[in-house]
Amino acid sequence: MTTVIPDDLRDLLDDPNYGALGTVRPDGTAQVNPMWFEFDGERLLFTHTTKRQKFRNLEENPSMSFMVFDPANPYRYLEVRGRLVEVTPDPEAEFYARLGRRYGSSGQENSPDKADRVILAMSVEWAGGH
Amino acid sequence: MTTVIPDDLRDLLDDPNYGALGTVRPDGTAQVNPMWFEFDGERLLFTHTTKRQKFRNLEENPSMSFMVFDPANPYRYLEVRGRLVEVTPDPEAEFYARLGRRYGSSGQENSPDKADRVILAMSVEWAGGH
Repeated sequence: MTTVIPDDLRDLLDDPNYGALGTVRPDGTAQVNPMWFEFDGERLLFTHTTKRQKFRNLEENPSMSFMVFDPANPYRYLEVRGRLVEVTPDPEAEFYARLGRRYGSSGQENSPDKADRVILAMSVEWAGGH
Repeated sequence: MTTVIPDDLRDLLDDPNYGALGTVRPDGTAQVNPMWFEFDGERLLFTHTTKRQKFRNLEENPSMSFMVFDPANPYRYLEVRGRLVEVTPDPEAEFYARLGRRYGSSGQENSPDKADRVILAMSVEWAGGH
């Protein structure tokens, strides 16, 4: 699969930036939340639990939009649009801990909600920014 | 009107932070864009033009969600949900220039698209974060 991420903005996905995930609530209104992520070259991966509102939103409407700023230059940003294409259980919270390490955090080793932890995989269907 | 912005997160709206505006596209999918803003104590104000996709989104679905990180501590964030409640023409791009000054930018004095410039006012109906 060829990704549509512009080459000159790819670093925004490689670096451990915080991003803003947009989803659509069941009543048709918008929701935006801060998210850690990892880009595997094809899909964006997020850690989540099945007990939260974002997951309920995505069960009804799989649309996702993810936006990342360059923290050193907020004029540089990338927006990626796609949808939830896979939900993988993460019962030992291994992916959650890996993301924690990517972001220099250490509180993910003993996740109290690991039984509900999942990996959300988002397709990359459109990308834009500058 | 009493705003629902938590006191301990109010600084995120007073400071010239970049935020992420979530809207819903006419096909029901999510869109997130970086935005400058000003908070007047009651509503969030954005500069925009009537020619862009966000405006078309809001004509069909006025829902808006706006999320701001603390640039010094991305664990601190505020999400505000509301909807487009007023569109005010800004034909001399005065508000656009004022926002530019707030953000330390100087390219807003001679806006080429000022005939289409508007001020979007977003209600504050719900706020959350930590």
